[in-house]
Amino acid sequence: MDITAIAKNFTEFYYSQFALGRLNLAPLYRPHSMMTWEGKQFQGGDNIVQHLAELPFEKVAHKISTFDAQPSSLDMSTLLISVTGLLRVDGDQELQFSQVFVLAKEGESFYVLNDMFRLNLG
Amino acid sequence: MDITAIAKNFTEFYYSQFALGRLNLAPLYRPHSMMTWEGKQFQGGDNIVQHLAELPFEKVAHKISTFDAQPSSLDMSTLLISVTGLLRVDGDQELQFSQVFVLAKEGESFYVLNDMFRLNLG
Repeated sequence: MDITAIAKNFTEFYYSQFALGRLNLAPLYRPHSMMTWEGKQFQGGDNIVQHLAELPFEKVAHKISTFDAQPSSLDMSTLLISVTGLLRVDGDQELQFSQVFVLAKEGESFYVLNDMFRLNLG
Repeated sequence: MDITAIAKNFTEFYYSQFALGRLNLAPLYRPHSMMTWEGKQFQGGDNIVQHLAELPFEKVAHKISTFDAQPSSLDMSTLLISVTGLLRVDGDQELQFSQVFVLAKEGESFYVLNDMFRLNLG
């Protein structure tokens, strides 16, 4: 199993769908999935995607600066991904962000078990 | 189990020992533990700590800006921690960093299963 390829495909899909329509991200989460967004915790796909949809911007673009992936269990059933990059919303200045995902295997695909997002304001 | 307290205790211990003597960190890792440090991968406590010890600075101080923790398995056997902050080495200017840990339960304590570190250069 090529961990890096799976992690890269996921990350590209996530940020492209985030830009196209955040509601498209719902199928990536399960009822026990957790997201911590700027310190606020949400659980389950519905709550997570509702929060993302309510974020007060229309256009958003992520530019990835660094990307790391590791298996996070001996049987390769979970993958850890860490991303840092630049985020531009509604034409404002770019902000640095850090985002971390744990993906968990389900049949032949993966869902998002953990998701943590932070702006880095230094 | 208070996830946040465990994660905070670990993080404080890790950064204090990192400053006092990086070799002190060896007991936190196991032979299958992985670290990705600025994109380079290391496996096992010996290799990980050897790399940390060889980093080309003497004094180092971490200042934590944000800290997030989540359980990363249904049975609470793993914890995900994401830290962003500022790093100062040998009196140089402060640099932003992101670090991610997965801790795995072993008896009544936890070891570091995954560790990823990046400087954020924007």
